[in-house]
Amino acid sequence: MEYRFAERMRLVKPSAIRELLKLGADPEVISFGGGFPDPDIFPIEQLRKVYDSVLVNDGKKALQYTTSEGLPSLRQKLADRMKRAGVECGIKNVFMIQGAQQGLDITAKMFIEKGDVIITENPTFIGALIAFNPYEPKYVPVSMDDEGLRMDELEEALKANRNTKFIYTIPDFQNPTGITMSLARRKRIVELADEYDVMILEDVPYREIRYEGESLPSIKSFDTQGRVIQLGSFSKILSPGMRLGWVVAEPYLAEKLCLLKMAADTQNSTMNMYAADRFMEMYDIDEHIERIRKAYKAKKDLMLRTIRSEFPENVSFTDPQGGLFTWLTLQKDIDTTWLMKERTLPEVKVAYVPGASFYPVNEERNHCRINYSCMSDEKIVEGITKLGKILKEYC
Amino acid sequence: MEYRFAERMRLVKPSAIRELLKLGADPEVISFGGGFPDPDIFPIEQLRKVYDSVLVNDGKKALQYTTSEGLPSLRQKLADRMKRAGVECGIKNVFMIQGAQQGLDITAKMFIEKGDVIITENPTFIGALIAFNPYEPKYVPVSMDDEGLRMDELEEALKANRNTKFIYTIPDFQNPTGITMSLARRKRIVELADEYDVMILEDVPYREIRYEGESLPSIKSFDTQGRVIQLGSFSKILSPGMRLGWVVAEPYLAEKLCLLKMAADTQNSTMNMYAADRFMEMYDIDEHIERIRKAYKAKKDLMLRTIRSEFPENVSFTDPQGGLFTWLTLQKDIDTTWLMKERTLPEVKVAYVPGASFYPVNEERNHCRINYSCMSDEKIVEGITKLGKILKEYC
Repeated sequence: MEYRFAERMRLVKPSAIRELLKLGADPEVISFGGGFPDPDIFPIEQLRKVYDSVLVNDGKKALQYTTSEGLPSLRQKLADRMKRAGVECGIKNVFMIQGAQQGLDITAKMFIEKGDVIITENPTFIGALIAFNPYEPKYVPVSMDDEGLRMDELEEALKANRNTKFIYTIPDFQNPTGITMSLARRKRIVELADEYDVMILEDVPYREIRYEGESLPSIKSFDTQGRVIQLGSFSKILSPGMRLGWVVAEPYLAEKLCLLKMAADTQNSTMNMYAADRFMEMYDIDEHIERIRKAYKAKKDLMLRTIRSEFPENVSFTDPQGGLFTWLTLQKDIDTTWLMKERTLPEVKVAYVPGASFYPVNEERNHCRINYSCMSDEKIVEGITKLGKILKEYC
Repeated sequence: MEYRFAERMRLVKPSAIRELLKLGADPEVISFGGGFPDPDIFPIEQLRKVYDSVLVNDGKKALQYTTSEGLPSLRQKLADRMKRAGVECGIKNVFMIQGAQQGLDITAKMFIEKGDVIITENPTFIGALIAFNPYEPKYVPVSMDDEGLRMDELEEALKANRNTKFIYTIPDFQNPTGITMSLARRKRIVELADEYDVMILEDVPYREIRYEGESLPSIKSFDTQGRVIQLGSFSKILSPGMRLGWVVAEPYLAEKLCLLKMAADTQNSTMNMYAADRFMEMYDIDEHIERIRKAYKAKKDLMLRTIRSEFPENVSFTDPQGGLFTWLTLQKDIDTTWLMKERTLPEVKVAYVPGASFYPVNEERNHCRINYSCMSDEKIVEGITKLGKILKEYC
């Protein structure tokens, strides 16, 4: 039969990347594609004790429904962490979501009318575009330099687009570029949002995975008007398979957003919320995060060292202070989608994410995103070396 | 600040019920309000073994990201169950969602353009209205009788509303009324949907909790055109706190719907999907369901016996063959919202769900939904007796 879909479905398509990455599902492929944490660091032994403790002591509650906001003791712990990180925050500012991804969906649902403008970094996180698309926004991407989103261009974009609803940014170790927004710009972006009366959606999934330099205050910490919505996540600091993220927002806004969360899926897994809460009681999550930082720093250093020695000199790459990715820029005429499909996958079985999909409009095809968090040291060296050999034919 | 929300937010409000039920959070209150399963039947000891087995044997995978469709072995098991229940079904027809609630959200997102018609049973499940509202549909409710949705009225509604996108129905032990749709009507609703070219959204969260009479084939089993989307759930047969539901649909449709699931929250909890899958391997879920059936039948019988002896005669109530609820109808001039707020809660600390919120339009105020699955036998007798005393003053 012919299905009569809503108009918005025009914008909902399987991404080219996803299809391409399916080719890379072959276990022999060395994949720098995903944004997966290193499974060797998952605290499996601790979580065995945690899940068991939850079921023994709180089984009836953990297996039952709870409120849409999520487990109060977990929300309180997150609020306390936020407070220690310099954000005015109490339990009413925080509610739990099904990974930060859900925060992207419900924020767009709350604000975006067809044709409203979302300003994004250029390039930006594909998952955000996928979440925003069904609400039919117009994207206005703004360039980045070493200090993140360019404030001069941002101001121009705000001036030119009075129907901007929010600016979407990943200020720490951005996905896909690995770039971190400078302190001055974190203050400035809030000033501009105040001046042009727009919201800021600050996505900080990698924030705690910093292994070099000093942690910068979040954009939310400079918010005096209640116009910054921050999305946090346990995916990179504990486990993505537990699907636990959280929203930090003004209580009025948090309550309203949570109505959309309730409408979308009632609540997060009570079980997993208990487990995260219990984990933070039984163990020191900061110690665990410290282990992740050390491991990823070593992996990043190894990858960048190998890139420096094995890649042609005119390939440039970012040197992130945290997070999971580096971003390669090749000569303008090299199409990384073609390169992966025709050369690196079939010939040397190496996968990455071609850059094109990270552009909301006017895609650039000569970039790629390389993940260093989840391959072994041997595979990092082997994969980068193989990639380098092919790149040398073109660069 | 003044937030500039999207238009759709007009329809997103905290429900009156929810506020009222908060008053009932007092542990002394005997609450027949929630739709909670009985926590005493949760298979806690088995789940301890299950979660431990998952972490010991598959920890790295269970804590990691997986595909948006969900764990293949779990999808396969569900497809096999569907097949045994008479629905043509393979793994490509099934994907996992965050409770059946998420299926309501993504189906509406896929089909509903502002002003499109959704036909619902009258009254219908509040959670569905909450999920559909942000897509700004027009509701056309259709009456029920003892055999469920009235087909004559349904046909009239379809004739009069050519922009109907789908019919939403809970054919088994409907929420809130407890009514089951007859076999003849299950066939007829598909014929009508074919004739008027509309989709059917069949929500079957209680389907397996039948304790009297014979199980009827699902509406999906009569679907030859791929126009029935069925939503299943582990919430009532295993645990709502694990947040596991599933969609059954044509592969083409399942794939497209799953793109919306991916956009909304990436995936379900890998951990919980492993746990449900392992539970079904290590234990006999049908044996467990049998225990639930027996327990709920006993509770329903007790409640109805008590209602018969303690309520005034002119209060009518449904006698469901399964599920969690009975539906009371009082004299037309009695407002159950008022009654609960002013009398039953403050005086005898008994809560139920007032009927008004279950009506998409033109609410009727003289009904209430009574849950019998999660109070102890003593409290069922005590609560119903106390309620009866107050009702006798009015009926």
